[in-house]
Amino acid sequence: MRVVIALGGNAMTAPDGTARPDDQQRAITAAMETVADLVAAGTEVVLTHGNGPQVGNLLVKNELAAGVVPPVPLDWCGAQTQGTIGVLVLDALDAALARRGVGKRTAALVSRTLVDRDDPHFAAPSKPIGRYLTAEEARVMIQHGQVWQDRGERGWRRVVASPEPRQCLDAAAARTLVDAGYVVVCAGGGGVPVVRHDDGSLYGVEAVIDKDLTAALLTEALDADGLVIATDVDAAVVGWGSAAARPLGEVSAAELRALADSGEFAEGSMGPKVEAACRVAASGRWAAITSLDQIAAALAGRVGTRVAS
Amino acid sequence: MRVVIALGGNAMTAPDGTARPDDQQRAITAAMETVADLVAAGTEVVLTHGNGPQVGNLLVKNELAAGVVPPVPLDWCGAQTQGTIGVLVLDALDAALARRGVGKRTAALVSRTLVDRDDPHFAAPSKPIGRYLTAEEARVMIQHGQVWQDRGERGWRRVVASPEPRQCLDAAAARTLVDAGYVVVCAGGGGVPVVRHDDGSLYGVEAVIDKDLTAALLTEALDADGLVIATDVDAAVVGWGSAAARPLGEVSAAELRALADSGEFAEGSMGPKVEAACRVAASGRWAAITSLDQIAAALAGRVGTRVAS
Repeated sequence: MRVVIALGGNAMTAPDGTARPDDQQRAITAAMETVADLVAAGTEVVLTHGNGPQVGNLLVKNELAAGVVPPVPLDWCGAQTQGTIGVLVLDALDAALARRGVGKRTAALVSRTLVDRDDPHFAAPSKPIGRYLTAEEARVMIQHGQVWQDRGERGWRRVVASPEPRQCLDAAAARTLVDAGYVVVCAGGGGVPVVRHDDGSLYGVEAVIDKDLTAALLTEALDADGLVIATDVDAAVVGWGSAAARPLGEVSAAELRALADSGEFAEGSMGPKVEAACRVAASGRWAAITSLDQIAAALAGRVGTRVAS
Repeated sequence: MRVVIALGGNAMTAPDGTARPDDQQRAITAAMETVADLVAAGTEVVLTHGNGPQVGNLLVKNELAAGVVPPVPLDWCGAQTQGTIGVLVLDALDAALARRGVGKRTAALVSRTLVDRDDPHFAAPSKPIGRYLTAEEARVMIQHGQVWQDRGERGWRRVVASPEPRQCLDAAAARTLVDAGYVVVCAGGGGVPVVRHDDGSLYGVEAVIDKDLTAALLTEALDADGLVIATDVDAAVVGWGSAAARPLGEVSAAELRALADSGEFAEGSMGPKVEAACRVAASGRWAAITSLDQIAAALAGRVGTRVAS
């Protein structure tokens, strides 16, 4: 069985979401124990991951050092996190596999995701990133061409476009490696967003891509059997916050889509996970939404929100 | 013919060595025209690259933002540059290959290099990195465990260990991709330095690895025919600065080693390139030291310092 696992923030930050280097290392080392168990049991695993807190830190560094060294664009920050998270995953996974006597090799690919130049999200950026600034500080960044929004009491926050992922440009390399027996890390942070110009040239763009939507694309590109979206809850919940709240177990794609359309899932968190799961199901594969600890149980059909076509 | 090409700073920074994002993009785009020509001519190319100015910028950001976001270790900075330089190379090379009608695919690997925990360089760090600080500023960093040296008029500078590269941990993945027909970017910045503890666990270490020495290891690990070290001069020069100065053309490994032993080559610049070339020759392959523009001529045996076993 070939499975893409999309690791959420809790697999690579402290429980409170902070991302000091030792927090990241500790969380990733723990997560790789789970992944190594799956690999040892014979599952072909492809890993992808989020990078929100890590990119947040890099944006602050950009800002505070801008008078001395040139800031790098947002897409470069994403590429930077593919490097650091990639190394941490490789180190931890290599050691965890070796301890289990598993001879599998690992590889992490720098990965880009193609988006449309005329994606409507570019005209209406709405994804908040980085830290809050005062109105005055935000004004300076706005003069530099960035879009910032007044978020009330906490201050102003930068918003960027979150365009639709169209193609994982490096999925073929990932597939070559997976077919050769590697556990592969790719499309970190949803992939570094790039656009293709009319003359064929490729350029990075300042945007963020939802990592779960990219993971759905990747699942198809790698001809994986399914996608596991690993997050901090065991399953998606309907009726969240009400007395009738219940975790969703096995559910059809049509049923899940209907629940999503009725506004059951929060836009910035469970929403895109459900959307990714629906897309995977639409491509004739299965998807599961569960916690990191429950992946094996979810693969066995005992836990988690599981959706099939 | 399979060739490893080690790209120096001038392939990815402005002529004066600065590394603003647009400088990097412009230099890499130009370098990839040369690489695409080689690939179009049927050469199997593996790329590796330096990252000094890029890491320098990241260290300054670390420093200036330390009060707000946690600094990351030096090895993480190296990993970050593998991400950014990797994406720039992939974008530029994909476009350059497409323009030539070459169907080759590209891939960039996050890459680690194993070093010995007890490498003697750790006890005597000597490789200068990052910017100069005042004695007072340096004192703060020294209290944080870093080693800084008084460099006279320009101020104090951090020095770190530059241990011997022992193994390219991700060379097997690179080889799988090269064998499958990919143009592969790997071991950027000499690879992210890691050590293996007695229990088998792997940890990054704060060090820099000479990219040309890693490239020599990589040449052997990939079973390449040879290594081209691309720099800003057409050939290594003997008698540098004297009236008898002359570029070295074809030279035997023994002859080159003897010249190196007599102190002909500057320690921080041509020295490691010559050392890397000698090591490649010792493994029964050829090496060339030449400028980016002259790689094709060097492969044809017309230009550059060319050393065979």
